[in-house]
Amino acid sequence: MSTQHRVLIAIIGAGGVGKCFLGQLADLAARRPATRLSLCYLTTSKRAVYSADYSDIDIAGAVARLAASAQTPLHLPVLVDYLAAAPAKVVLVDNTSAQDVADAYPLFLSRGISIVTPNKKAFAGSYEHWQAIFTAAATSGAKVYHEASCGAGLPLISTVKDLVETGDQITRIEGIFSGTLSFLFNSFAPATPASDGRATGTWSAEVAKAKELGYTEPDPRDDLNGMDVARKLTILARLAGLPVASPTAFPVQSLIPAELETASSGDEFLAKLPQFDAQMESVKAAAARDGKVVRYVGSVDVATQALKVGLETFDRAHPFAALKGSDNIFSFYTKRYGSNPLIIQGAGAGGEVTAMGVTSDLIKVLSQIA
Amino acid sequence: MSTQHRVLIAIIGAGGVGKCFLGQLADLAARRPATRLSLCYLTTSKRAVYSADYSDIDIAGAVARLAASAQTPLHLPVLVDYLAAAPAKVVLVDNTSAQDVADAYPLFLSRGISIVTPNKKAFAGSYEHWQAIFTAAATSGAKVYHEASCGAGLPLISTVKDLVETGDQITRIEGIFSGTLSFLFNSFAPATPASDGRATGTWSAEVAKAKELGYTEPDPRDDLNGMDVARKLTILARLAGLPVASPTAFPVQSLIPAELETASSGDEFLAKLPQFDAQMESVKAAAARDGKVVRYVGSVDVATQALKVGLETFDRAHPFAALKGSDNIFSFYTKRYGSNPLIIQGAGAGGEVTAMGVTSDLIKVLSQIA
Repeated sequence: MSTQHRVLIAIIGAGGVGKCFLGQLADLAARRPATRLSLCYLTTSKRAVYSADYSDIDIAGAVARLAASAQTPLHLPVLVDYLAAAPAKVVLVDNTSAQDVADAYPLFLSRGISIVTPNKKAFAGSYEHWQAIFTAAATSGAKVYHEASCGAGLPLISTVKDLVETGDQITRIEGIFSGTLSFLFNSFAPATPASDGRATGTWSAEVAKAKELGYTEPDPRDDLNGMDVARKLTILARLAGLPVASPTAFPVQSLIPAELETASSGDEFLAKLPQFDAQMESVKAAAARDGKVVRYVGSVDVATQALKVGLETFDRAHPFAALKGSDNIFSFYTKRYGSNPLIIQGAGAGGEVTAMGVTSDLIKVLSQIA
Repeated sequence: MSTQHRVLIAIIGAGGVGKCFLGQLADLAARRPATRLSLCYLTTSKRAVYSADYSDIDIAGAVARLAASAQTPLHLPVLVDYLAAAPAKVVLVDNTSAQDVADAYPLFLSRGISIVTPNKKAFAGSYEHWQAIFTAAATSGAKVYHEASCGAGLPLISTVKDLVETGDQITRIEGIFSGTLSFLFNSFAPATPASDGRATGTWSAEVAKAKELGYTEPDPRDDLNGMDVARKLTILARLAGLPVASPTAFPVQSLIPAELETASSGDEFLAKLPQFDAQMESVKAAAARDGKVVRYVGSVDVATQALKVGLETFDRAHPFAALKGSDNIFSFYTKRYGSNPLIIQGAGAGGEVTAMGVTSDLIKVLSQIA
């Protein structure tokens, strides 16, 4: 335990999550004297920092050095060769949501390069790609962890793995997977009246407010189409054992009025959305007549292999109804846990908590390879 | 990856949790061809099965073989020598709640023997013993995991570790740590009236019912004194960074009326408890006047290092009020998660879910040593 192992870290992406991760990595490196965590490669889509001899890049100064760098990113196959030839074990940290990087995971893994990432694309693509990733890892012994690909730093993927690997049978998973849609419905149809007595706004007003607060994508339709939820549900369902073909292989209810699918911009969409407020108002009123509230939920029934994403109603005392802010919540029903599910809830988005998922994965990989 | 590593498993305890664990171990061994999981030692306090040459004990038939065995358990120092001399790495699984086994953890760990266990005694004893355990592990490289020492299979300890190791600051933890007391207060002071219209019973009637259903210790005072909650809170607080001296070093509210502390038996206690029903009834009524319900909670405020265990009141919409059955619930407030805590809830007791915590720990150890 006294020799210092060196592990090389290569990072793609230095945006919101990437910058938070670099802060956590600097902290981790300082607190982990038994392992020398050497940052050897850092890149955005435009610039890069690295050297032919894999010398350490100062982590604290890496972002500034990157901004001033004249180096350009290595093409992915060249990056694979560069990392595979390194003089120590390598962990690739993909802090992007880039498809091309996700596509290259089997190649990295087959060459012994471990991966930690919040990138959903790799795990919510085709089932063949999913298999290629885990087969490559199993064959080479490289590790791949992606806790933050669903629910940011919440311990969801590790929990599903623990349940499955210890021999429990997951029968059903349901959850509020989207922070944006959580915020919208918690505001639009709260389980209890606001403590300040404030009336809830119309659906379109809530969407506009969520955009203003930075809770939506630049075009809110990218949240309202439900595909982000479908991708996360695909990942959990696959971990629970179902060979889900793709996130478009099951019913996903879009909250975009058909007439606004083709609006030319997010702004045009928002301008026209008030014309359709009666639709969501009637959904809310129908639920209220039964003493319930409406929420946007993803669920998988493992026995029937049925996945679906869309609106569902819940009693006001249900944990899904009582959710606050933009929190996520996930219920895992299993044979061992019986009628009361194992529930995990909390912030499912944000730079620091997403980076935390990546950092905790890195620690798991280090415990196995360092 | 193609050679089969052998890892020896030694198990102390073959009661409720122990039997469930053996079932999960048999399953795991069958599904893990890359590692040969060899059971080499199995013991209760009376009988044992092992051989001088560490040959494999058939896992599926182990309980039956133990029941028929004429071998007696090795004294703990002898067991340490036996396991330290083994021809492969060893994991000791302590499925007891025995103090003497807990006391020997530093010795096992210092000799390179890893430990997984649900035994609270080792981690909720003196702070010196806590330090001796983790110092021994750090020095020898042996691993020690104890997820099931709090909340059974719920991912609590792993989550606290992830938060701390990734650099988050835990500011506060509060939770309903006892399945027994959860059941009692969920029945005695439900947040919403029972769906079958059933009236709640008196406090003493609820305690008697819980005992009948097998939710209490043989003497219910062992639940009502709060010490089980204090031990679990001590463990989480220490993981959050506080050097808690012992589970008796902070205020713990006992629910045993002072007059009944000295009752000679659990039965005598139950027979006399109705005389004191007015006390708990007035607590419940006071909470109800504020629109609240009463729950038995453990909490730690990290900044002020204040731990306490006892009755607190919660709004009916609070997640602690809405808990069902004998579920546990834990809220982790941290710098990153802000005002909305990370919450984990579900069954916190039971043979299979406790064994699951032990088995998932074993898998973590195997990933690092096998």
